[in-house]
Amino acid sequence: MRLTPEQLEQFDRDGYLFFPGLFSKEETQTLSDAVPDLYSRREAYNIREKGSDAVRTNFAAHLISEPFAKLARHPRMVEPVQDLFGGEDLYMHQFKINGKKAFDGDVWQWHQDYGTWLNDDAMPTERAMNVAIFLDDVIEFNGPLMFIPGSHKKGVVDAKHDLTTTSYPLWTVDNALIAQLVDRAGGKNGGIVAPKGPAGSMILFHSCLVHASSSNLSPFDRVSVYLSLCTLGNHIRRFKRPEFIAHRDFTPISCLPDDCLSKPYPVDLPWKDGLPASALETSTDLIDEAKAA
Amino acid sequence: MRLTPEQLEQFDRDGYLFFPGLFSKEETQTLSDAVPDLYSRREAYNIREKGSDAVRTNFAAHLISEPFAKLARHPRMVEPVQDLFGGEDLYMHQFKINGKKAFDGDVWQWHQDYGTWLNDDAMPTERAMNVAIFLDDVIEFNGPLMFIPGSHKKGVVDAKHDLTTTSYPLWTVDNALIAQLVDRAGGKNGGIVAPKGPAGSMILFHSCLVHASSSNLSPFDRVSVYLSLCTLGNHIRRFKRPEFIAHRDFTPISCLPDDCLSKPYPVDLPWKDGLPASALETSTDLIDEAKAA
Repeated sequence: MRLTPEQLEQFDRDGYLFFPGLFSKEETQTLSDAVPDLYSRREAYNIREKGSDAVRTNFAAHLISEPFAKLARHPRMVEPVQDLFGGEDLYMHQFKINGKKAFDGDVWQWHQDYGTWLNDDAMPTERAMNVAIFLDDVIEFNGPLMFIPGSHKKGVVDAKHDLTTTSYPLWTVDNALIAQLVDRAGGKNGGIVAPKGPAGSMILFHSCLVHASSSNLSPFDRVSVYLSLCTLGNHIRRFKRPEFIAHRDFTPISCLPDDCLSKPYPVDLPWKDGLPASALETSTDLIDEAKAA
Repeated sequence: MRLTPEQLEQFDRDGYLFFPGLFSKEETQTLSDAVPDLYSRREAYNIREKGSDAVRTNFAAHLISEPFAKLARHPRMVEPVQDLFGGEDLYMHQFKINGKKAFDGDVWQWHQDYGTWLNDDAMPTERAMNVAIFLDDVIEFNGPLMFIPGSHKKGVVDAKHDLTTTSYPLWTVDNALIAQLVDRAGGKNGGIVAPKGPAGSMILFHSCLVHASSSNLSPFDRVSVYLSLCTLGNHIRRFKRPEFIAHRDFTPISCLPDDCLSKPYPVDLPWKDGLPASALETSTDLIDEAKAA
């Protein structure tokens, strides 16, 4: 699957591309079926909601669970991202399965992902891409992802480190700036968009695109996989966050065949039996470039 | 304005009726203009959001502010409610202006209003009606009111007193029952509805209709007036909550003319200069019927 010139242009203008129903019901089910076991583990990589046992976000499933390891190498996901970066090789910077569970799913404040990657991980530039894959149908009522179209054009904007609103720390954008960006994008008519679609849909969005999501008061889960793929030369320069959050293995992703979610293919699952101690080690130093290369 | 047989039937089936743009821009503006002064007052009748100074709900504006005193007597609002109760006289049980302010507006958990009126105020039956009037445009992103159509048919359902989630105590409905009700109403297709429309729109909804609203992460305020009109014979029997929340004056509402929001008409504003001490007095005793009559 390669992107058309129209899609490349649309991405440049809006900061995102939406592919409804890109993965089949069966392919998506394979992924969904693997979530309860991952979420049930009492491991550092499961961050739970404030005041509830529901999982807010699970990290690094592609190193633990076979279906997610395959998804991390799926050509339908990887190739469009490569197209957007002129064919450059990619590595997996972050791999999350966000719960946004029925009734318990809490808000994600307005933020840019690249803001966090720059501030925490010392990622040099914004040459990294977010991919969202819906494991549940996304409707108006289960806290869909909201974007401010075109907001990626502002580059990195001011943010403050929000450590209190939710259970997961985030560099969040100031209200006055959000109001300005939404107004510029069309105000009440198009200033905010929230792509909705069946389980199996995919969104690619720019790492500077400002996004948020509301709480989920509905009885419908809204589990989504968020993969962040970074171009090789743009790998992070600091390991301030644990490795299960911001990966340190800069090996380029090799795609599996397109049918990899329905057929057996061997994949490595290095953290299958638990996190290595090294995955919890952190440092505020910039890394030794020679060693990382 | 009287309701048609079709509207009566629709209300019976769904538990609500929606009137987009019922009040004009000018009429709505008169009301909106009076809100900042009300919200700025440091009075018991302004309940602020948890962790912010934004007003979550303001009570009893119809006893304090001229435009809202007129709205409380507006035939376009009162007559349809009377139609739904076979012409019976009504008094004002509760009068709220809910802020749901841009960025700060927090969730309202799933609840029935009559649950609270029964448990706290000893209101004998569900013969009381909720009216919502939008002072701002309501869109998908500023925390619209959500209903479960037909849920009023269940009568009063089990609820627990939620004193912690938000800054305002509420008798909220259990998640398993919400899931059941939404499923019965159509699940992902129609099991939840959220009427949207311009400022000046009105919703009438049954006091047993289960409703909620999500947080408002958008830069757009979503201020709404919520009036609760009760049939005279159904007046509350206990003054457990302060009078500014649950009113104790059972005088029937007399309508003003239809142009009352654009022309001067005299209205009483008994609490204009501050709350009387009696409005804060509460009691868990049932009231002396003879005295109240």
